[in-house]
Amino acid sequence: MPPRERAPAPPSPPSPGLARRGFLAAGAGIAAAAAGARAAAETKGAPPNLPDWTKQLGPGVGDKPYGVPSPHEKHIVRRTVDWLTASKESSVSFTPIAEQIGIITPSGLHFERHHAGRADIDPKQHRLIMHGLVERAMNFSVEDIKRFPSISVVRFIECPANGGMEWRGAQLERAQYVRGMISCSEWTGVTLRTLLRETGLKATAKWMLAEGADAAAMTRSVPIAKVLDDAMICYGQNGEAIRPEQGYPLRLLLPGWEGNMSVKWLRRLEFGDQPWHTREETAKYTDLMPDGRARQFTWFMEANSVVTYPSPERPFGGKGFHEVSGFAWSGLGAIKRVDVTFDGGRNWTTARLHEPVHSKALARWSLPFRWNGEPLLVMSRAQDQTGYVQPSIAELRKVRGTNSIYHNNAMITWQVKAGGEVENVQLK
Amino acid sequence: MPPRERAPAPPSPPSPGLARRGFLAAGAGIAAAAAGARAAAETKGAPPNLPDWTKQLGPGVGDKPYGVPSPHEKHIVRRTVDWLTASKESSVSFTPIAEQIGIITPSGLHFERHHAGRADIDPKQHRLIMHGLVERAMNFSVEDIKRFPSISVVRFIECPANGGMEWRGAQLERAQYVRGMISCSEWTGVTLRTLLRETGLKATAKWMLAEGADAAAMTRSVPIAKVLDDAMICYGQNGEAIRPEQGYPLRLLLPGWEGNMSVKWLRRLEFGDQPWHTREETAKYTDLMPDGRARQFTWFMEANSVVTYPSPERPFGGKGFHEVSGFAWSGLGAIKRVDVTFDGGRNWTTARLHEPVHSKALARWSLPFRWNGEPLLVMSRAQDQTGYVQPSIAELRKVRGTNSIYHNNAMITWQVKAGGEVENVQLK
Repeated sequence: MPPRERAPAPPSPPSPGLARRGFLAAGAGIAAAAAGARAAAETKGAPPNLPDWTKQLGPGVGDKPYGVPSPHEKHIVRRTVDWLTASKESSVSFTPIAEQIGIITPSGLHFERHHAGRADIDPKQHRLIMHGLVERAMNFSVEDIKRFPSISVVRFIECPANGGMEWRGAQLERAQYVRGMISCSEWTGVTLRTLLRETGLKATAKWMLAEGADAAAMTRSVPIAKVLDDAMICYGQNGEAIRPEQGYPLRLLLPGWEGNMSVKWLRRLEFGDQPWHTREETAKYTDLMPDGRARQFTWFMEANSVVTYPSPERPFGGKGFHEVSGFAWSGLGAIKRVDVTFDGGRNWTTARLHEPVHSKALARWSLPFRWNGEPLLVMSRAQDQTGYVQPSIAELRKVRGTNSIYHNNAMITWQVKAGGEVENVQLK
Repeated sequence: MPPRERAPAPPSPPSPGLARRGFLAAGAGIAAAAAGARAAAETKGAPPNLPDWTKQLGPGVGDKPYGVPSPHEKHIVRRTVDWLTASKESSVSFTPIAEQIGIITPSGLHFERHHAGRADIDPKQHRLIMHGLVERAMNFSVEDIKRFPSISVVRFIECPANGGMEWRGAQLERAQYVRGMISCSEWTGVTLRTLLRETGLKATAKWMLAEGADAAAMTRSVPIAKVLDDAMICYGQNGEAIRPEQGYPLRLLLPGWEGNMSVKWLRRLEFGDQPWHTREETAKYTDLMPDGRARQFTWFMEANSVVTYPSPERPFGGKGFHEVSGFAWSGLGAIKRVDVTFDGGRNWTTARLHEPVHSKALARWSLPFRWNGEPLLVMSRAQDQTGYVQPSIAELRKVRGTNSIYHNNAMITWQVKAGGEVENVQLK
């Protein structure tokens, strides 16, 4: 495994534009916004006039046995980039992360990464095979899996190519494209520890191969330590069956590790004494270094963050108080701290982390800020429970070079212009 | 406020049919299930034959910009009861609680209770008015509300009529109908404490009136202590905008209190020195006692629970190991303990509570159980952090009589028959 890049610890003097910390100062900031709201209300012809929806009966209950969002929210969807891949069957769609509220990604908006299209599986016909260096090879139906003791965890899944377009120089004008290959769900299922009590595990077993039932027969090798640590076979996502795009009816979950290893549409687990060196861990999902060698098995997703407000798709609507906000996450545990700069990195202020902060999950952070219309260079920097600090792109390029695609966890820079619009700019 | 009914503390000797506690014993139980799975696999013609979905490319990414569940899950929907109310506009649809996985209710399956149909609101036209005994009457747009510092919390919303059909003697054959007027979401918004810093609050203000923008202009009086404790104005539900059926674009959230008080489509908050005694707190949502007097302002939802497996819609499929499971919740805080009986209340065993256990949220519990085919009377009993223990229906009738409709938090009894089918039986 590669060494983990480490950036220097962040200094934190207060920045001039920032609202002072504490409830009183935040209140002062809010007052400015509210005064603006009052003025706006006076000019908009708003209520107390009664709107139409108060004057007539609405649709009754049961109108939609399975509900959908308001038509006024129809712009909040997964999006694809046409030029990114040769076909839609092996491609990605991005979560609208700037518009996500809270830490749970709605299942309908979970990013997609398929290698041979979505497998539409009949759960009655589906089986999970466990074989190889086990005491008893076994074959489970989905109903069998559901009979075992279950747990639920809130965890992110992130494609290691998240940020890959940035790394190669693209400056796309949506946070959705810049960091939208991440989503966070409540996952429910059975630990592999539990299942391995049924099959037994031979002492010679050091690796597990996970194989999907999709047309790519997606395969990855997983070291046994991870299998016995926190690997799960999941059938539930956010309170219901896993969605087809996320692996219905069964997927592997390897919390904090590359998303492609949490094999979807899981059909087979083989136990062996060495890795399989599949296509997805040789030709793909390796990191080409400046010296021409490729790092293999760069499994975990390092601490990362994104500012979602302001962002290209969510500009500042005006001067005054704003709750600057975003996400941070780490594949190595819980986020411990997030710092924010408004001047491209000269001054940093620590943001508030919203409870609860789950391990290996999206963490929401925010920071009160009063904007006077000056240009800004906004960046966020995450630190996780191991002490690791998210690097700048310059720091990362120094150790990584430019050949690689995956594992770009460098800080992102948004430029806020005088009108409040936000542009994605890549600082050197 | 009424006194809180209290049931005696539960004894907990082990029950004969139960798997012994601890990892080893649970493993033994699982082994039985797994043996069954193996036998089943041998006879079903299961893989290693490759299924069709492994032999052909599936649909590409972006096929569904906003995803939906697998067609194989289409039976899991909200359901209504035709005979319950005179019209669908003032009625309820029930969450399929037996099929819910984890603790987050999918937003599309959140129960509905409308009083004059669903208000379909244009968020650009919507305003929230705050007036009365405040220093500055104010009028906020939805965008204004979103500019304030936000928090997210996992909380249930429950209609106080949950269990009301049971109380009146109906024995409906779905857990969905028996306790499906509850759902649990990640709610995001602004605390009323924060908003009241903008408007100011006069010392004489003791109550708040909340009014909806629906055609019922739903109104409830809320004591100021609750307003300042944990009341929120929410715009987010499970990572996206609140769904239309739950109050889009703004709703009040009063965690743990009667669902109807968390006024949906919120348009107006008035502050006063006494309650308004609206229709919904005089003619409705009061509890008629045996002596002919009605209890008013029975705000909080007391500790409650339901066994979701086994249940009428999820019978035991066969003998052997089963993870018996369900939900527990309390409007007064976190669930501390859940006990389960398989013999109608003679013997009780403490279930495992699944982490995390949020305050005023659905808590998942489970218990390993080996079933030998004998008839069972299964009940669960919740205890919350205040020490309150969920009562039997006999205990509740003793203090409540039979006239009331709301706040039936009595234990439910499922009868498991020799074939594994489950019937709803009301024990005296």
